[in-house]
Amino acid sequence: MGQVAWKGLFLSLFDYKTEKYVIAKNKKVGILYRVVQLSILAYLVGWVFVVKKGYQDTDTSLQSSVITKLKGVAFTNTSELGERLWDVADYVIPPQGENVFFVMTNLIVTPNQRQATCPESVSIPNALCDKDEDCPAGEAVVAGNGVKTGRCLKDRDSIRRTCEILAWCPVEKRSKPKKPLLASAENFTVYIKNSIRFPKFKFSKVNVLATNNESYLKNCRYGTEHPYCPIFLLGNIVRWAGSDFQEMALEGGVIGIQIEWNCDLDKAPSECNPHYSFSRLDNKFAEKSISSGYNFRFAKYYRDAEGVDYRTLIKAYGIRFDVMVNGKAGKFNIIPTIINIGSGLALMGAGAFFCDLVLLYLIKKSNFYRGKKYEEVKTGALAVQRVMAFAVRCARPGWENSLLALSVTFACSLRSSTRKSLSSPALNGNQSPEQLGGL
Amino acid sequence: MGQVAWKGLFLSLFDYKTEKYVIAKNKKVGILYRVVQLSILAYLVGWVFVVKKGYQDTDTSLQSSVITKLKGVAFTNTSELGERLWDVADYVIPPQGENVFFVMTNLIVTPNQRQATCPESVSIPNALCDKDEDCPAGEAVVAGNGVKTGRCLKDRDSIRRTCEILAWCPVEKRSKPKKPLLASAENFTVYIKNSIRFPKFKFSKVNVLATNNESYLKNCRYGTEHPYCPIFLLGNIVRWAGSDFQEMALEGGVIGIQIEWNCDLDKAPSECNPHYSFSRLDNKFAEKSISSGYNFRFAKYYRDAEGVDYRTLIKAYGIRFDVMVNGKAGKFNIIPTIINIGSGLALMGAGAFFCDLVLLYLIKKSNFYRGKKYEEVKTGALAVQRVMAFAVRCARPGWENSLLALSVTFACSLRSSTRKSLSSPALNGNQSPEQLGGL
Amino acid sequence: MGQVAWKGLFLSLFDYKTEKYVIAKNKKVGILYRVVQLSILAYLVGWVFVVKKGYQDTDTSLQSSVITKLKGVAFTNTSELGERLWDVADYVIPPQGENVFFVMTNLIVTPNQRQATCPESVSIPNALCDKDEDCPAGEAVVAGNGVKTGRCLKDRDSIRRTCEILAWCPVEKRSKPKKPLLASAENFTVYIKNSIRFPKFKFSKVNVLATNNESYLKNCRYGTEHPYCPIFLLGNIVRWAGSDFQEMALEGGVIGIQIEWNCDLDKAPSECNPHYSFSRLDNKFAEKSISSGYNFRFAKYYRDAEGVDYRTLIKAYGIRFDVMVNGKAGKFNIIPTIINIGSGLALMGAGAFFCDLVLLYLIKKSNFYRGKKYEEVKTGALAVQRVMAFAVRCARPGWENSLLALSVTFACSLRSSTRKSLSSPALNGNQSPEQLGGL
Repeated sequence: MGQVAWKGLFLSLFDYKTEKYVIAKNKKVGILYRVVQLSILAYLVGWVFVVKKGYQDTDTSLQSSVITKLKGVAFTNTSELGERLWDVADYVIPPQGENVFFVMTNLIVTPNQRQATCPESVSIPNALCDKDEDCPAGEAVVAGNGVKTGRCLKDRDSIRRTCEILAWCPVEKRSKPKKPLLASAENFTVYIKNSIRFPKFKFSKVNVLATNNESYLKNCRYGTEHPYCPIFLLGNIVRWAGSDFQEMALEGGVIGIQIEWNCDLDKAPSECNPHYSFSRLDNKFAEKSISSGYNFRFAKYYRDAEGVDYRTLIKAYGIRFDVMVNGKAGKFNIIPTIINIGSGLALMGAGAFFCDLVLLYLIKKSNFYRGKKYEEVKTGALAVQRVMAFAVRCARPGWENSLLALSVTFACSLRSSTRKSLSSPALNGNQSPEQLGGL
Repeated sequence: MGQVAWKGLFLSLFDYKTEKYVIAKNKKVGILYRVVQLSILAYLVGWVFVVKKGYQDTDTSLQSSVITKLKGVAFTNTSELGERLWDVADYVIPPQGENVFFVMTNLIVTPNQRQATCPESVSIPNALCDKDEDCPAGEAVVAGNGVKTGRCLKDRDSIRRTCEILAWCPVEKRSKPKKPLLASAENFTVYIKNSIRFPKFKFSKVNVLATNNESYLKNCRYGTEHPYCPIFLLGNIVRWAGSDFQEMALEGGVIGIQIEWNCDLDKAPSECNPHYSFSRLDNKFAEKSISSGYNFRFAKYYRDAEGVDYRTLIKAYGIRFDVMVNGKAGKFNIIPTIINIGSGLALMGAGAFFCDLVLLYLIKKSNFYRGKKYEEVKTGALAVQRVMAFAVRCARPGWENSLLALSVTFACSLRSSTRKSLSSPALNGNQSPEQLGGL
Repeated sequence: MGQVAWKGLFLSLFDYKTEKYVIAKNKKVGILYRVVQLSILAYLVGWVFVVKKGYQDTDTSLQSSVITKLKGVAFTNTSELGERLWDVADYVIPPQGENVFFVMTNLIVTPNQRQATCPESVSIPNALCDKDEDCPAGEAVVAGNGVKTGRCLKDRDSIRRTCEILAWCPVEKRSKPKKPLLASAENFTVYIKNSIRFPKFKFSKVNVLATNNESYLKNCRYGTEHPYCPIFLLGNIVRWAGSDFQEMALEGGVIGIQIEWNCDLDKAPSECNPHYSFSRLDNKFAEKSISSGYNFRFAKYYRDAEGVDYRTLIKAYGIRFDVMVNGKAGKFNIIPTIINIGSGLALMGAGAFFCDLVLLYLIKKSNFYRGKKYEEVKTGALAVQRVMAFAVRCARPGWENSLLALSVTFACSLRSSTRKSLSSPALNGNQSPEQLGGL
């Protein structure tokens, strides 16, 4: 038996088995199915292939290197600093032009700070005191500048008393200028060089236009008419990000410069160009001082003739620029193509499944179609038995042959064609004769 | 012929063709199939849709901006530095609060280094010598501090002789304090401001709680009871990362602060909140000095009255904090929904395929079901021939008609129903009459 | 009717329904189909499972921490700087060993700059002038170093006249050394410590070989024979990146160090090792000065006895190293396995679809197979009617029974087997007798 099974299995290896279909001449469902098929096809071709380029193998892990270089000078004339000129080495932090750079636009300078004792700033709640007992010695001032010495002092030019502290003295004044010091930073330019590489496709490119016109690259400014010029005006960047430079220069902030490489490598390399977009990354709408703007403190350290350290503390307000590079490269590849087509066809199967539900359970004649789609087995068996009954009853001399023939034919035809069966695997063409001979 | 084919193709365009099924009344396989179906359905609904939110279009490329700001002062009193107060400008490197910041907790200071000649440190194997010949002039000391001058000296307060070198002299002493200098850094706080944006959905948010209660944001500390407070105590961060601050402060280390945004934009924006987690990134279990801890050297440069440069070399031990932001936003979208459903149904097909194998090759009556599922063709043809044979043999006057009728009926019925055929495409219903008329 | 439908639906719940197949004994298509199946199977097993490890759940979001530490000293002897020794604190910027570090290999020093007035450099086009009118006071020199004072001066040792500017004076000389100052940087070594963590699988590892042989880790150098040594010779890195160190040291450049972790966590952790690759990230082939090399300016600030600031401006050329870590970890998971198998089988469906097209529309006997695959309904009905016609015509006494029997049998057989129908769901086995009795 099993051996027969395996033999049959082997023999039938090179027969092509194809599903048998029932044609339901129901135009409603038919049209519904065509609509479903067409929409799936439209989705597959239109969306998956044309829009999403589903026939391409993509690489999103690009290697990127960003070099930034600022140019520009600013001249200021203030009471505490006097006439002063600011150049790149002064206002760019950190100096090595990486993808994140900070341009100082405003600052509070506290010169000649030395390790000493002085009254804490009155703007710090924890430092306010009435008597020495309010200032336990050795305790650090919360959110303050130093450690309490134990005495409660009255700062000159202030009516309130604060704890004396050991700190870098004098402490910083909490007075911010009303207008940015380096307002002219708006006219500074930044040269952004971004070289990328898609490892999977071994494709490299630079955002600097491949031109021999040296002077163009020195003098151009990025804009709608120069979309591939790598030199940007700070003022424009901030404006494109939807902010006002002057107010941003006062409080500071963070600007994101997105460089997007969306390359279709089936086209020419010259088609693969960067696309720049600018957005403000800190929430400019926050009114609360705690979460608006951008500033930090740093110090320049000096040593006097006696070898004593002193420093100039600088609270720097300014704009931090984050250059973020991301990209995607696509190139034709057979595998994703096959997968997408396959899944599309699988989707068709889903569509058929849905239409079957309609045909078999929702429309008026569903009962009938269900009968057609699914092959009942039992009734068939009954029919054959009935034939046999008749055949026996109305048997006459000279009739066996033809009736036999007919019955046999029924049996055979029914079995092998319509799967009506006596529910016995033993019954098949060559066995039936002797079986019937047993009658 | 071909034209007929195309005509038929066109006519049948709007008939709905549905697969024909055989109902195998085998409860075993039936139940097996239901189980398979149910588990696939459960997987599809439970896992793909509920857990993985397969009905959503997701955006994982978030734009993030991190601003960090430390607060806190530390007072130290050591022999070489004397009484000294450390504030933010002293211990935070680099000063501009980016997403990676370093807090100095311990340091080895080598003041007043000048370009000169002095004996190399005895702790460097390559510098040990017995006579001048061991110190070829101009050769750099491997892993050392300078270039050999050619002389072999005996450093004061040391019994061993080392090569004299041209270097920043005196060279650094390899003596690390037993306890961290800035132990009180444990109480410093860091304010982490993280604004994110999901470009695809144009959704922005900040990790700072949108409250008007200014004092709350100034005084709260992140913790289980304040999950959305953006101010962290360094000591807590280290503890949550599973390390001990004091020992980490001595040797240094790296702590990762992960901020995870997992936003379901089908819900209210207020549901989209950051989730913080902390982990130690350098391998704290490494005993070997070479791969444990974190430290680096930097120098402060001074110039004396004669215009000669000298410097203070600082070997800084401390904790580096890396703030890493990642996130995922999802929003309902019809396309992934369709795709997931489709692939789920395709999976059902796979289930059916599996059950077929069981039905057709593994169970006892498989032979029988195989006969049912696959429609044999040849045997059918035989049967018809046999009928014809009988019909001719037992032909009698007056019998032609009826027998003819029967035969015809067989032929027709068999052909169009059971695919038993005379292997001739020409034979079909309307042609048979004249064909038979030829008898 | 509907209720019957639901009853039938319920009863048939645990019958296993399997598609009915027609066996087309066409070896051509059969073999074609087998070929398609085998290629899909090969693709599924070979590509999806073996190559792409489709049975694994992957995690590509790894947490990485990079610590870098340079070693090496260089001795220089130049006219302007005299004998000088450079150590790590001098040439590494920034000092804290992060994943991006810069090694200074060449520099232009402009010492003792003070805020004053001096003629602009002649190399700046915008500063050239003939008379004072060419230098409007207060205007900044484009791409220059200061703000014009309004006078047109003749710099000593230069034949051309330039505007006088207020700036850090004297301005920098545009003269680059012909050979790199720190040429010996080629022999510096960098120790790169990279600890990674795959959060999804809670798997951590460090690129430092887990050996107790301390001296090995101190003395080894990365190379083909030491693939897991974390110490690299700068000269080798540059060579492996395909550049020449000396020329790169002169102009500067950017080198990318990719560390790739490709871990199969189904194997032992010791199998999960880093793979290093090196590439040059700035476009070295660019001849234009504007986009080749890497340099930046920074200043050291001093204060003289009178408390006046002065600085030393340094234009640093050198090599920036970007350590980029990416990785992928895979571990067996049932879900992707199922999905891949499912989609593979769905693909088989696509293959069958394709073969059907061939069978039904492209081969010679397609017409015939189409007839077999799709079950025509109308013709069937005709046949039955014809039988009835004959049956009535040649009816004779004593004949009813047998004929009845036959007809009934036809009716039954045809109906339930071959779906030939009078297009009436009412017709089925038990009804046919009285129906025929009506004759």
